Amino acid sequence: MRIAVINPNTTASMTQRIAVAARLAAAAGTDIIDRQPTVGPEAIEGPFDGALSVPGLLREIVAAERDGADAHIIACFDDTGLDAARAVASKPVIGIGEASFHAASLVAHSFCVVTTLSRSAPVIEDNIHRYGFSTRCRRVFATDIPVLELENPESGAFEKISSFIRQGLALGAEGVALGCAGMAAFAQDLQRTHGVPVVDGVSAAVGLAETLVRCGLSTSKSGVWATPARFHVLEKLS
Amino acid sequence: MRIAVINPNTTASMTQRIAVAARLAAAAGTDIIDRQPTVGPEAIEGPFDGALSVPGLLREIVAAERDGADAHIIACFDDTGLDAARAVASKPVIGIGEASFHAASLVAHSFCVVTTLSRSAPVIEDNIHRYGFSTRCRRVFATDIPVLELENPESGAFEKISSFIRQGLALGAEGVALGCAGMAAFAQDLQRTHGVPVVDGVSAAVGLAETLVRCGLSTSKSGVWATPARFHVLEKLS
Amino acid sequence: MRIAVINPNTTASMTQRIAVAARLAAAAGTDIIDRQPTVGPEAIEGPFDGALSVPGLLREIVAAERDGADAHIIACFDDTGLDAARAVASKPVIGIGEASFHAASLVAHSFCVVTTLSRSAPVIEDNIHRYGFSTRCRRVFATDIPVLELENPESGAFEKISSFIRQGLALGAEGVALGCAGMAAFAQDLQRTHGVPVVDGVSAAVGLAETLVRCGLSTSKSGVWATPARFHVLEKLS
Amino acid sequence: MRIAVINPNTTASMTQRIAVAARLAAAAGTDIIDRQPTVGPEAIEGPFDGALSVPGLLREIVAAERDGADAHIIACFDDTGLDAARAVASKPVIGIGEASFHAASLVAHSFCVVTTLSRSAPVIEDNIHRYGFSTRCRRVFATDIPVLELENPESGAFEKISSFIRQGLALGAEGVALGCAGMAAFAQDLQRTHGVPVVDGVSAAVGLAETLVRCGLSTSKSGVWATPARFHVLEKLS
Amino acid sequence: MRIAVINPNTTASMTQRIAVAARLAAAAGTDIIDRQPTVGPEAIEGPFDGALSVPGLLREIVAAERDGADAHIIACFDDTGLDAARAVASKPVIGIGEASFHAASLVAHSFCVVTTLSRSAPVIEDNIHRYGFSTRCRRVFATDIPVLELENPESGAFEKISSFIRQGLALGAEGVALGCAGMAAFAQDLQRTHGVPVVDGVSAAVGLAETLVRCGLSTSKSGVWATPARFHVLEKLS
Amino acid sequence: MRIAVINPNTTASMTQRIAVAARLAAAAGTDIIDRQPTVGPEAIEGPFDGALSVPGLLREIVAAERDGADAHIIACFDDTGLDAARAVASKPVIGIGEASFHAASLVAHSFCVVTTLSRSAPVIEDNIHRYGFSTRCRRVFATDIPVLELENPESGAFEKISSFIRQGLALGAEGVALGCAGMAAFAQDLQRTHGVPVVDGVSAAVGLAETLVRCGLSTSKSGVWATPARFHVLEKLS
Repeated sequence: MRIAVINPNTTASMTQRIAVAARLAAAAGTDIIDRQPTVGPEAIEGPFDGALSVPGLLREIVAAERDGADAHIIACFDDTGLDAARAVASKPVIGIGEASFHAASLVAHSFCVVTTLSRSAPVIEDNIHRYGFSTRCRRVFATDIPVLELENPESGAFEKISSFIRQGLALGAEGVALGCAGMAAFAQDLQRTHGVPVVDGVSAAVGLAETLVRCGLSTSKSGVWATPARFHVLEKLS
Repeated sequence: MRIAVINPNTTASMTQRIAVAARLAAAAGTDIIDRQPTVGPEAIEGPFDGALSVPGLLREIVAAERDGADAHIIACFDDTGLDAARAVASKPVIGIGEASFHAASLVAHSFCVVTTLSRSAPVIEDNIHRYGFSTRCRRVFATDIPVLELENPESGAFEKISSFIRQGLALGAEGVALGCAGMAAFAQDLQRTHGVPVVDGVSAAVGLAETLVRCGLSTSKSGVWATPARFHVLEKLS
Repeated sequence: MRIAVINPNTTASMTQRIAVAARLAAAAGTDIIDRQPTVGPEAIEGPFDGALSVPGLLREIVAAERDGADAHIIACFDDTGLDAARAVASKPVIGIGEASFHAASLVAHSFCVVTTLSRSAPVIEDNIHRYGFSTRCRRVFATDIPVLELENPESGAFEKISSFIRQGLALGAEGVALGCAGMAAFAQDLQRTHGVPVVDGVSAAVGLAETLVRCGLSTSKSGVWATPARFHVLEKLS
Repeated sequence: MRIAVINPNTTASMTQRIAVAARLAAAAGTDIIDRQPTVGPEAIEGPFDGALSVPGLLREIVAAERDGADAHIIACFDDTGLDAARAVASKPVIGIGEASFHAASLVAHSFCVVTTLSRSAPVIEDNIHRYGFSTRCRRVFATDIPVLELENPESGAFEKISSFIRQGLALGAEGVALGCAGMAAFAQDLQRTHGVPVVDGVSAAVGLAETLVRCGLSTSKSGVWATPARFHVLEKLS
Repeated sequence: MRIAVINPNTTASMTQRIAVAARLAAAAGTDIIDRQPTVGPEAIEGPFDGALSVPGLLREIVAAERDGADAHIIACFDDTGLDAARAVASKPVIGIGEASFHAASLVAHSFCVVTTLSRSAPVIEDNIHRYGFSTRCRRVFATDIPVLELENPESGAFEKISSFIRQGLALGAEGVALGCAGMAAFAQDLQRTHGVPVVDGVSAAVGLAETLVRCGLSTSKSGVWATPARFHVLEKLS
Repeated sequence: MRIAVINPNTTASMTQRIAVAARLAAAAGTDIIDRQPTVGPEAIEGPFDGALSVPGLLREIVAAERDGADAHIIACFDDTGLDAARAVASKPVIGIGEASFHAASLVAHSFCVVTTLSRSAPVIEDNIHRYGFSTRCRRVFATDIPVLELENPESGAFEKISSFIRQGLALGAEGVALGCAGMAAFAQDLQRTHGVPVVDGVSAAVGLAETLVRCGLSTSKSGVWATPARFHVLEKLS
């Protein structure tokens, strides 16, 4: 099985880190193909960056299908471009945000989300509301740690994330969804420290993609995600 | 006051029709500036077209602000790109879909929506859910009349729309939102025929835009719609 | 265009202040006619006062229509008597509470309300729930400043309101609706101080009323707001 | 125990019928005191009649308390004036609409409502939404039988109500709330015919009132239903 | 009238305390029959205990019906086994959790719940969500006082419960539901101390059971609570 | 990896069919261990059967953990005993009902459920509401085909299920969840016939279980699903 993991921003180091997390979670026999657009924002911080990453993301999905991908993962916690991607792809598409919420709700009666930027929290809240997880999610916290600082051991990222997790548990959360692909490396340690399940969206999305492929399920083409009539516009926009 | 009405697709005849409706609804002293992108889909039928229209739409908003617009209207019933547009603009932005729901809920205890394409209905339903109008909207109906056929007197468009309105009223709707800018010309006749308020989104959006400007209200920049840091990406994508 | 702004309580100084705010927000060519009942409560503090103000309010609406009003505004943040008023009027009716929520949700992803009395907060929360704005409103705060103290510079009203706004912003609100017609004078200063949109309901209602009139939209008479059969009862109750 | 059952309209025959139903349901030792206002609408058909009945209703509540009532029932399915009544009364107040929904949800996983007038259905739907019974109620049906026709054996009322009950059961309802005090006489026969619980609101309200009195529970005065400061207005309005 | 009050756990002292509360609330002429299973958990702390108490509970319900019970009360705040009990019983069944929520919402615009164990709070929250009381309940608090400590005057239980009530009132609650049958003895004192209605579920359930019996209402057998086909399994499991 | 698939009823032929479906969906290297209780109902038709199957189900889970299971699947579409099972297990537990809803919502904007018995539909609707999928699920249909008839080629099961799917698609559903483990054999043919994704819960649950195990995620023990203190009761009940 071949799964395309697409980082919708143009920062190659991020793409590499995402690919590592994806490969660790994949079953034997699953190939992870990592991809990123050639143009577009270097990071996705809010709806403007999100919207501008979509044309590049869609082109990567088209290319990945041509290369034989059996499923696609959009590796941005905002699930940027998910509807458009489902329309262009013939194979299933999963966002790492939704994957986190699905996985968290299978192991935690209620959960909290810890993300990076304040300005992304409302995007995530809108998605949670739309997907139906509002009663399961106690709060979306923003640490306001810049994404690139996550790897810096001096940034105190682990402790900052931990302090929000403690707040979430005090509100009744029984699990955590890490709201940024760059936090994946902390998941296991946080899980050990806090004694509750801590979900990394990339890993969860790999499992969900494998599940859909093995079940022979793909995106419905009967409604909102029907194949678009104007593929040519995608070429013109490059 | 100067209001930019932006048709996010590239069909000039549609832009003209929208501008006519907008000018009819504007107060004395309001200038309506119509705009459309130079590249992008010719019509917005589903989330793929929607996503691909956004870069062009955002450039028109930037240009309209440079030309002194006091407010912006996105003239697509799907409210395509609304969040990204609010982030790039310093002046208020209104989608004609949301404008219709706001106006309809001020004159009808509950309403129905009559739109063109089946594949757009779920996009509209998602917006209604997200904005909070789910308890006010009885049903979103799709007539499956092609947009360009709306003007053809032989298409039977008026009678088709009427038959869905009758279904909506039987479900308890007390008003109607016309779910396509191209239906504006029918609004008054439908209102007379069915004896209930029939809302055209372009007209409603003009009034709401004037309201915000006169009240000195503009998009909050404190959260999800903060000014983006990567304006340069918009240039590169053209 | 002639808009009747009806203060449902019997305090003339309040009526005058409301009229000032309405005239400031009105478009050129809009006449604001202020009215107030001759009997009824001097202030509307909770559901008892609200209920007892309705007969007087309805008589003012009937009189305003006779005088040629094109639309009516109920200038109480509780939207007292809104359904009954829509039934008696042939022209559109807007409450300043609902007007605030509509306007706030066009410029703020989520907002908070700052009102005067604790006992009115549940009335406002019920309205927000009923209109569909529950997911948009983070919290309704009561300052417990008596309405008449709002004008007293020694009351510290501005700073009290400000401290609740700060709490609301900490909860993620990106805008504010001022929950009392008497707070209108603070709106601009609060907006400047906190850097987020601050909505005054009277101004917003004027714009919405103008919008409906220009769009040729009026209250649906096909359902709950149908013209009542027992107008005579209104006469007897005076 | 003394329970005041207040018919908020001025039709004495209706008051008598309501009193009969209340006495049948009362426990041994419960006195039912029936009351009706001296002025106000003869029937409550929509929000205008509802609003105009409230001053008279409130005066009856004040009088009933003076006469030693331990609890009050508002015998209109729209729960007209319930909030204002709770504010003026020191003893508990129950509406027959809410009583029906509470009772129905204890014996039916989901239920439907069969009421008289189309124009009242949205009032009932709003109440159901506000009280929290939206997921329990499948549909509110209006028979459009005039209230006074309910007693006329030639009106076919029983069969008309039955046909809506059958529709409700087909939608999954497992019980019925009769949405008009005038339908009480049919309750037992309808229950036998359809084999599902059929709730009469007056009877249910009597039981709930007795329950609150025996439990020593009365309306909270700490918030929205606090005792009003302007009782004098009630006198002036008569 | 004969009402079976069934304590689903096997602790006899608890059964006695519950019976005392039930008898105090019952109308003249109501016999309270207390029952408890012979096997099963001694206390119900979370879903495992809840599930294991159900077979014993169901046998008590079958026995109570044989002994002529007119209604059944499940005296566990989690409403353990309520659906299964409604299926086996031909007479109405009420849980003390749901009874509390119904009663509280008749006397308080919004309420809070104060229960014993943290691990039970999510069970209660799920029930509140399912029954439709989510908008009425501000928060479910867990005191983490062990049930048996409630009677120990040195446990400080009264003050602990009081401190959570104060928190609830600060959040806008206007009433309290005591989330454990063992707290019934505190209800009156707490009501006096805090000046808001404090609901004991056992008393409320007795009144609701009497109400249903007097109204001639019993559980619908047309749907989910239809009489089961496999009564024999209940015998085998003992 | 070892996954225990537990049929909570005592019909061995059903257990075998479920095991076949599970093995077809499992990844290479996943062992499927099928189990069923020794006592309890032969089929789960409504909440009584559901409740009585739980003690046996829990014993199978305890035994499966002793045998080294890495995850557990409850193979009943009602998700019978899911909370209690999560409490006793140290490894993750998934119900096939919830698995279906999660999978369906990843490939269909909205879906319908086609189950066997009318009396089970409300159980499924309650679960959908509780999990948060209410806005995603258009309708739960009951075919009223007895479970054992599903395999009988003369029963017309395929055509009956198909006719409900057509109704669901007409309501806007874009996918289907088959609401009974016994329908798994039809999934592929139904998918081909109707051109939309058709989800079998057993297959979906296997994928989700593998996902959780590979991600190192297990049930939170910090709250409602904490390990019970009274394991001994389970022994006594056998």
